[in-house]
Amino acid sequence: MWTELLPIGRSSVSGGYRRHAWTGADVDCRAWFEAQARSRGLGFEVDRNGNQWAWLGDPTAGDAVVTGSHLDSVPDGGAFDGPLGVVSSFAALDELHARKAQPTRPLAIVNFGDEEGARFGLACVGSRLAAGQLTPEKARELVDADGVGLPQAMENAGYDPGAIGPDPERLARIGAFVELHVEQGRSLDLTGDAIGIASSIWPHGRWRFDFHGEANHAGTTRLEDRRDPMLSYADTVLAARREARLAGALATFGKVSVEPNGVNAIASLVRGWLDSRAADQETLDRVVAGIEQAAYERGARDGIDVRVTRESFTPVVEFEHALRDEVAKLLGGVVPVLPTGAGHDAGILSASVPTAMLFVRNPTGVSHSPAETAAEEDCLAGVTALADVLEGLACS
Amino acid sequence: MWTELLPIGRSSVSGGYRRHAWTGADVDCRAWFEAQARSRGLGFEVDRNGNQWAWLGDPTAGDAVVTGSHLDSVPDGGAFDGPLGVVSSFAALDELHARKAQPTRPLAIVNFGDEEGARFGLACVGSRLAAGQLTPEKARELVDADGVGLPQAMENAGYDPGAIGPDPERLARIGAFVELHVEQGRSLDLTGDAIGIASSIWPHGRWRFDFHGEANHAGTTRLEDRRDPMLSYADTVLAARREARLAGALATFGKVSVEPNGVNAIASLVRGWLDSRAADQETLDRVVAGIEQAAYERGARDGIDVRVTRESFTPVVEFEHALRDEVAKLLGGVVPVLPTGAGHDAGILSASVPTAMLFVRNPTGVSHSPAETAAEEDCLAGVTALADVLEGLACS
Repeated sequence: MWTELLPIGRSSVSGGYRRHAWTGADVDCRAWFEAQARSRGLGFEVDRNGNQWAWLGDPTAGDAVVTGSHLDSVPDGGAFDGPLGVVSSFAALDELHARKAQPTRPLAIVNFGDEEGARFGLACVGSRLAAGQLTPEKARELVDADGVGLPQAMENAGYDPGAIGPDPERLARIGAFVELHVEQGRSLDLTGDAIGIASSIWPHGRWRFDFHGEANHAGTTRLEDRRDPMLSYADTVLAARREARLAGALATFGKVSVEPNGVNAIASLVRGWLDSRAADQETLDRVVAGIEQAAYERGARDGIDVRVTRESFTPVVEFEHALRDEVAKLLGGVVPVLPTGAGHDAGILSASVPTAMLFVRNPTGVSHSPAETAAEEDCLAGVTALADVLEGLACS
Repeated sequence: MWTELLPIGRSSVSGGYRRHAWTGADVDCRAWFEAQARSRGLGFEVDRNGNQWAWLGDPTAGDAVVTGSHLDSVPDGGAFDGPLGVVSSFAALDELHARKAQPTRPLAIVNFGDEEGARFGLACVGSRLAAGQLTPEKARELVDADGVGLPQAMENAGYDPGAIGPDPERLARIGAFVELHVEQGRSLDLTGDAIGIASSIWPHGRWRFDFHGEANHAGTTRLEDRRDPMLSYADTVLAARREARLAGALATFGKVSVEPNGVNAIASLVRGWLDSRAADQETLDRVVAGIEQAAYERGARDGIDVRVTRESFTPVVEFEHALRDEVAKLLGGVVPVLPTGAGHDAGILSASVPTAMLFVRNPTGVSHSPAETAAEEDCLAGVTALADVLEGLACS
C-alpha cells in the first residue's frame, strides 16, 4: 500500500514530493485512495468540496468515527506529512478486521483536499470549505502562480467546482474525528515516546510584505540615488528572527519573489512571505507587530514603500478535552500530550466536531523536506494506536 | 524609425521591455534592423556570431568606421539602453546624406547580439565571441532559466549556431568603433551637458552566492534546530551595501532564487547574485572579498554551507586616448569626459579596435527600468554629435 503511493509526484532531482492540489500527481494520489477503498469493499464518495471518503457502515447513520489526513504536499515535501495518516487509517481498518472487531458506529477514512496550500497560498482549503471557514466566493478567487484559478484547476482534475461550499449535514453526521500525523518537531524524540496526543495548535498566519522601490542600473546608479527594496527586505528577514527569538515564537521568510530579478538591475519590487506562530494570540500579535515596525522603519530609510497584507490566519485551537482524555485512556494513559505549531485539517474541524490528533515520532524533527523520516516500527506503533482508538470508540 | 521599434517586446503591465536574446521580441528587433538597412540601400549581413551589420561602402576595404550598439534589453528594461545607439546611427547616416558628405572610408552600423546577458547570465556575448573573449565551447554551455541552451535558442530564432567563434578578420577591417549610449547615471545632468565622452569603464563582475541550508517546517522547527539560509543571505545583502559604501564602490543583489520557495517551508537553498563594480581593480577585489567574508562568517553561525562562484568578470577598460581626443576635437573640445560603471560592447571591442563612446544625458539617471528616459532634444543633439564624429573620421 505504502510502496504504491511512494513514487507518485516524487522529484527525481530532490527526492521531494510535489503533490500540489489538483495537479496530475494529486489526481494519481486520489486514484490510489479510491482503489484502496474499493479493494476493501468500503463505500467510496467525493463530497462537494472534492474531499474523498471511504465508508465502513452507513454514512447517513450519524455519530460516525472518522480518521484520515491529506495526500497533497508542500514543494519538495517529505513522504510522511499527510500520507502517513491516510495509509495508517487503511492499515488500522485492516487491523480491526484482523481483530474481528465489530463496529457499532459507522467508520470512515477521509482524504482532505489541498491541506498544504502550496498551490493557491491558503492551507486546508478542503476542510475550511466544508466547515464554512472559507466562503465559496473567496475560494473561487484563489489563483495559482501560473494564473490558473481554483475552479479551473478542479475542473482540469475532473472535479466539479460548481458545488463547493459549507457541508454542515456531513459534519453533523461525524461524532469524532481522529487524525494521525507524523510529528513535525522533536518533542517525542526528546521524551523517547513513539506516540503522542495533541493538546493544541498554536495560532498562526501568513503575511505578505511588499517592498516597492525603483528599478535602476546596478552598475551606474550611485548608492545615494537608490531606492533598493532588497535592503529593506533583508533587514526585515533578520528582524523577524530577532522578534521570534525574544518572544519564544516562530517567524520565517521562506518564499520570495523579485521584480525584475535581473543580475544588473536594482529590484523594483521584493515580495516576501512571513509565516509566524506562537503559543498564544497575544505573543503572536506582538511578534508580527514588531516585524512590521522594523519593515516600516527600514523602508523609510531606504525610500521604500512597504505594504503588509495578512493572507491567512488561524486562531489557537484547543482540542476537546473529553475526547483527548478518552483517546489517552484507550492508549493506556501514559502518552505525552503536546502542542504543535503546525496547522492541520483537524484544527479546522475541531470548531465543528470533537477532534483529536495522534503524533508519530519524528527522529530528526525534519518536515516539509525530502529528508523527513519516521522509523518503520514507530509507524507500525501508530497503526496499532489508531486501531486501538478506533476500536475503543466505534466497536463493541 | 523610433516609433516602429517602440512597441516591440514591451510589457503592457510594466511598460518595460523584455527583448531577451533570441526570443521573438529580439527576432522582431532584428527584422527592424534589416529593414532599416535595406530601405537605405546599405549592404546587410549577419556575422558568424549573429551580430547584424549594415554597410555603406565596401566591407572588405578595411579601416572602416563602425558605429552602433545593441537592441536587446534587461527584464523590464527601458526604451533607450541600446536602441538609442542603433537608431542614432541610422539617423546620423541620414544626416551625413543630407549634408552631402562624401565617405572616404567604409562606414557600418552594427547591432551586437545579447549585450545585456538577461537570458543566459553572461553580458556582451555577441561582441565577446567576435573578440575571442568567450570561447565557442563556453558559449555553447550557456543555458537559460528554462533549460534552453544558447545553440538551441539561436537555432529557434533562425540563426546557425554552428559557426560561432572569434572573428579576427572582421575586427581587423575596423579602424574605429564609436558607440553612442544613453548615460546610465546623472553626471551629465549634474554638469548641464547634453553629450559626454567615455573615459573608462569600471572593472565589474557577477558573483553567484549559494547558501545551502536545510528545508524544514516553518511552523514546528525550533529556532535552534534550524539551518535557515535566508538569514545568511539577508545578512550578506546588508554587508554588500556596507562594503560598497565604505569603499565608494557599487554592490547590488538584484536577483534571487529560493528552493523550495514555500511560505511554510524553511528554505533549503537561497541563491543570490552579486553585481559589483569599482573605479579600480584593487578596490573591487577588496569589496568582493569583504562581502564573501561576511557571507562565510554569517553562514558559519547559521549552519549554512556558502559557495561563491564568479560567473563573469570584465577588467577595467581605458578607452584609447588618441581616438577619444579626436572625437572630443570633432565635438568642439568642450565635452565632459566621464567614466561609467556599466559594461558595453565598446568595452569588449576596445581590446581589439580603437574605440570611443558618446553618452547622451539621462535627466533622472534611471536605467534598466521602464522609467528610463531622455529628452528629445538631447537625443537629436546625440545624432548631430555622432554625425559630426562620423563625418570627421570617415568623410572628406
